[in-house]
Amino acid sequence: MNAEQLFEQIRRKRSFLCVGLDTDIQKIPRFLMDTSDPIFAFNKQIIDATADLCIAYKPNLAFYECMGVQGWVSLEKTVNYIRSEYPEMFIIADAKRGDIGNTSNMYARAFFDHFDFDAVTVAPYMGEDSVKPFMTYLDKWVILLALTSNKGAANFQYVKDAETGDALFETVLKTSKEWGTTDNLMYVVGATKAEKLEEIRKIVPDHFLLVPGVGAQGGSLQEVAEYGLNDQCGLIVNASRSILYAGSDENFAKRAREEAESLQVEMEEILLEAELI
Amino acid sequence: MNAEQLFEQIRRKRSFLCVGLDTDIQKIPRFLMDTSDPIFAFNKQIIDATADLCIAYKPNLAFYECMGVQGWVSLEKTVNYIRSEYPEMFIIADAKRGDIGNTSNMYARAFFDHFDFDAVTVAPYMGEDSVKPFMTYLDKWVILLALTSNKGAANFQYVKDAETGDALFETVLKTSKEWGTTDNLMYVVGATKAEKLEEIRKIVPDHFLLVPGVGAQGGSLQEVAEYGLNDQCGLIVNASRSILYAGSDENFAKRAREEAESLQVEMEEILLEAELI
Repeated sequence: MNAEQLFEQIRRKRSFLCVGLDTDIQKIPRFLMDTSDPIFAFNKQIIDATADLCIAYKPNLAFYECMGVQGWVSLEKTVNYIRSEYPEMFIIADAKRGDIGNTSNMYARAFFDHFDFDAVTVAPYMGEDSVKPFMTYLDKWVILLALTSNKGAANFQYVKDAETGDALFETVLKTSKEWGTTDNLMYVVGATKAEKLEEIRKIVPDHFLLVPGVGAQGGSLQEVAEYGLNDQCGLIVNASRSILYAGSDENFAKRAREEAESLQVEMEEILLEAELI
Repeated sequence: MNAEQLFEQIRRKRSFLCVGLDTDIQKIPRFLMDTSDPIFAFNKQIIDATADLCIAYKPNLAFYECMGVQGWVSLEKTVNYIRSEYPEMFIIADAKRGDIGNTSNMYARAFFDHFDFDAVTVAPYMGEDSVKPFMTYLDKWVILLALTSNKGAANFQYVKDAETGDALFETVLKTSKEWGTTDNLMYVVGATKAEKLEEIRKIVPDHFLLVPGVGAQGGSLQEVAEYGLNDQCGLIVNASRSILYAGSDENFAKRAREEAESLQVEMEEILLEAELI
């Protein structure tokens, strides 16, 4: 999927919502534990309840890896289910990978050849040759960490470059945007850092941004839209826990849908106001 | 395993070698393809051929993930085999993980609860709350990326802090060493950057360093030892491809052993000269 096609999906669904599949076996409704694959059973219901309201799903790989082989099975079933039932969906592997070139090559094979993800999140610390192998696949994306939503972002991401005066996240944006295009590279910018979006948009006006941190982490959708929206929307806003765990009984999927819908309605208003739909 | 116990292993085996299990299905001897699990069959022979010469194994997770569920099965079998046959071995998950706190918690569960790894490599970009969850397990380790062995290290790791004049990798060392102890935190420093080890040892004189890049990547063991050795050895030097793919036929394990042995002999001389054994 390229940027134009992604924007088409956003206009069609009147939404730029991504549902994060951070599926925690300890948090899903107890009655699902009687099924043969509780994680997949949960995901399937969440997906069916929200697919018309969102343009992307983002399985967080940690939540699958912590269950070993069975977790990997649940992940494969989840990705294959989305791809077969909702083929137009943008599927993000939230993996935060990044390693030396020959190893990043193998990760790219994992996510784009073995799985049929559209995008993978990558950490920038190891630089160009750790990122580029993910960009050699047509219509697949790297989503590079720029400014993250967590407290620890303050440790290194704001360190100012003695030569340029740029904060590290700005250096990451300016350097890495030369490695790819607006059709294969986007950036993670946390919703909890919405006030920085104005500066970020000066550096990468046309790139899509994946924005986590709305919902459980406390970021504001209105603020994100105010500074982050561009003429192709340019935003994918993720919510995970606030949707997944909105309910805890048999009605969990219905409650998840209500949460997703309230975000979608808010997004539709934002898109209308910006005359993007 | 704590630092003292690790040093004991180094003295007993007269080696500080780690064998990187970057097992690539496209590179292993063809005759293994007839076995039910070629990746595990290869690893088992490599492990049995080198276990008396090394103190650690380091499966590189990308090489398993790219095979999906089957790769995960091979990885579990490999880790369980090492743990049951060579219980004193230090086993490193080369995973380069790192995410917001609740996600890093899940990765820690994956590697330390589900698997019985001793250590996991972690990327520092997301800061303290992405690293600390790995430190809450007794006798388990974080191995944090400081200065990596690849070309892309030059993109961000040398960016100088306007306030302190420190390169980013030095800022990472100085900041993160407050998060843990010499019993639960080590650092990745590439052998291709041996000339920087002298400066790094001023910042972290007592921490163990995991040093990749000897062998296929061209780093020199003598240089690494000259600047990196401390009074508990303080080094784990990794070689992967140069050992794994030394041979390509039925004799591959024997050839791997010869490669490992030549490194072990060199390490024994270094340890003797430093009067550590």
